[in-house]
Amino acid sequence: MYNMDKLYEAVVASGPVCVGLDTAVDYIPPTERRRWGDDQAVLAYNQALIDATADVAACFKVQIAYYEERGLTGLDTYAKTLRAIRKRGSLVIADIKRGDIADTARRYAKAHFEGIFEADFVTLSPYMGMDSIEPWLSYADSNGKGAFVLMRTSNQGMRDFEYQELKAGGRLYDVVGDRLSALTPRRLGKYGYGAFGVVVGCTEGEEAAAIREKRRNLFFLIPGYGAQGGAAEDAALLLRNGNGGVVNASRSILKAWSINGKAPEDADNRYAAEAARKAVIDMRDAIQAAVQATITTGGAH
Amino acid sequence: MYNMDKLYEAVVASGPVCVGLDTAVDYIPPTERRRWGDDQAVLAYNQALIDATADVAACFKVQIAYYEERGLTGLDTYAKTLRAIRKRGSLVIADIKRGDIADTARRYAKAHFEGIFEADFVTLSPYMGMDSIEPWLSYADSNGKGAFVLMRTSNQGMRDFEYQELKAGGRLYDVVGDRLSALTPRRLGKYGYGAFGVVVGCTEGEEAAAIREKRRNLFFLIPGYGAQGGAAEDAALLLRNGNGGVVNASRSILKAWSINGKAPEDADNRYAAEAARKAVIDMRDAIQAAVQATITTGGAH
Repeated sequence: MYNMDKLYEAVVASGPVCVGLDTAVDYIPPTERRRWGDDQAVLAYNQALIDATADVAACFKVQIAYYEERGLTGLDTYAKTLRAIRKRGSLVIADIKRGDIADTARRYAKAHFEGIFEADFVTLSPYMGMDSIEPWLSYADSNGKGAFVLMRTSNQGMRDFEYQELKAGGRLYDVVGDRLSALTPRRLGKYGYGAFGVVVGCTEGEEAAAIREKRRNLFFLIPGYGAQGGAAEDAALLLRNGNGGVVNASRSILKAWSINGKAPEDADNRYAAEAARKAVIDMRDAIQAAVQATITTGGAH
Repeated sequence: MYNMDKLYEAVVASGPVCVGLDTAVDYIPPTERRRWGDDQAVLAYNQALIDATADVAACFKVQIAYYEERGLTGLDTYAKTLRAIRKRGSLVIADIKRGDIADTARRYAKAHFEGIFEADFVTLSPYMGMDSIEPWLSYADSNGKGAFVLMRTSNQGMRDFEYQELKAGGRLYDVVGDRLSALTPRRLGKYGYGAFGVVVGCTEGEEAAAIREKRRNLFFLIPGYGAQGGAAEDAALLLRNGNGGVVNASRSILKAWSINGKAPEDADNRYAAEAARKAVIDMRDAIQAAVQATITTGGAH
């Protein structure tokens, strides 16, 4: 069974929210930082949020940069965070955006699909071509591992290269989508999605609906919600009947406890975890309501 | 002073070879692996090769995947390898191919331009756009740090995306080159090259000469030599009078001691280091002879 099938089932059970643990130390209540020291505080904070949100979220995503900047100690916390999520029975996406070829790609795959950094999914960058993606596929075959390849992101710089119009028609990101779609038939999961999916940022309505319609067999990792400006209606258009994708939010969940600067001075991890849980539930409900509205009004889904 | 200026001067002093320390344990003489154990053996091997080649090479490149696959111990060896190179007074390129935006890019930049993983240069992947490159530039301004952004690589998959023809003319990699060239005037070093350069793989003659001619203000990191099929003549075409780029080789240097399986059974690091030094000198001389031939025959350089 592919991890992508498990992710589909997790969305059925708990909704489409992906909790992003991009845990900067200044997102953590000061009382906890004083108590634990910064390095331990990150792990304790992550553990509190994992426990508080696992049953209302589809999965977690851990952005390795936030750990790498703290050197070996940070990477130890990264490894322990992955382990805590998997021990809890939840799925985790390692947001590492690797993209390198041949033997190097095989070494990266071993690093992130085995050993202390083992994750259920990774994110990959396609610039160098399909020989930077293919070496990871052997882990889909042997262990059900999955990946999300950058396709059409929602940052401003997206227009620089991803959005370039091609002589042969379409945009660069369309060709990335084509190549990923072409991988799918040989590794098709039981819910109609391939073992490997793509990253598609929250974007305006029409283009989102077109992308969703064109890529029916690719599961989407959808960043750009909340702090990055995406709305529930945009996310709903990238789903298919509320599944076929997970919608990531990081800061709006991690910092929910201190929004508007209204937190009490003695706010602790328990307080922050409750706020995070509420933020996840609100986000889930908003997306599911938008999905219902789309279906009711006779949208494409 | 930009690190790119120091690199130019290193090429003047020692030639254009970049020694790639993609040190897999099975590249190391068995006698040393038995002596040190695998983790220590990698560091001891790297140290031996650094000492043996620093004066005949322009710089070193360390591919992090080969260390990441060994978890925290491997990353500790990675950090110590960077330190050993810099302590020796040589320049080091961290081959990490990062590409992520905004706050994430800033965290990555901190991780690789400060602290235990501090390098002189990094490699970056441009897929997400210029907002994945720009956050790194503040370190060029404050510390002279440099980067090489993937432009036109030499792997087979290069044709999938980098080589796509655009509606507006040119190929995708041309637009990447244009955007990087446009960064240069504000950060122009004293030898006419910008603080940030590009990765251009060894490729066939005509295209190489055209790329070199078009990107006169960009310093090149040139992989694909030796084990990957590139020849001295191809590399020479990507240089300007023998400078303006460094040519990387990894396996052909790291495994020089065992080429053709002719190594004595008791080969040790000293034996391997001598073979590596000879491989670097041979490569340097071959490229410099090819550069001379190009100049003599009235080539563009």
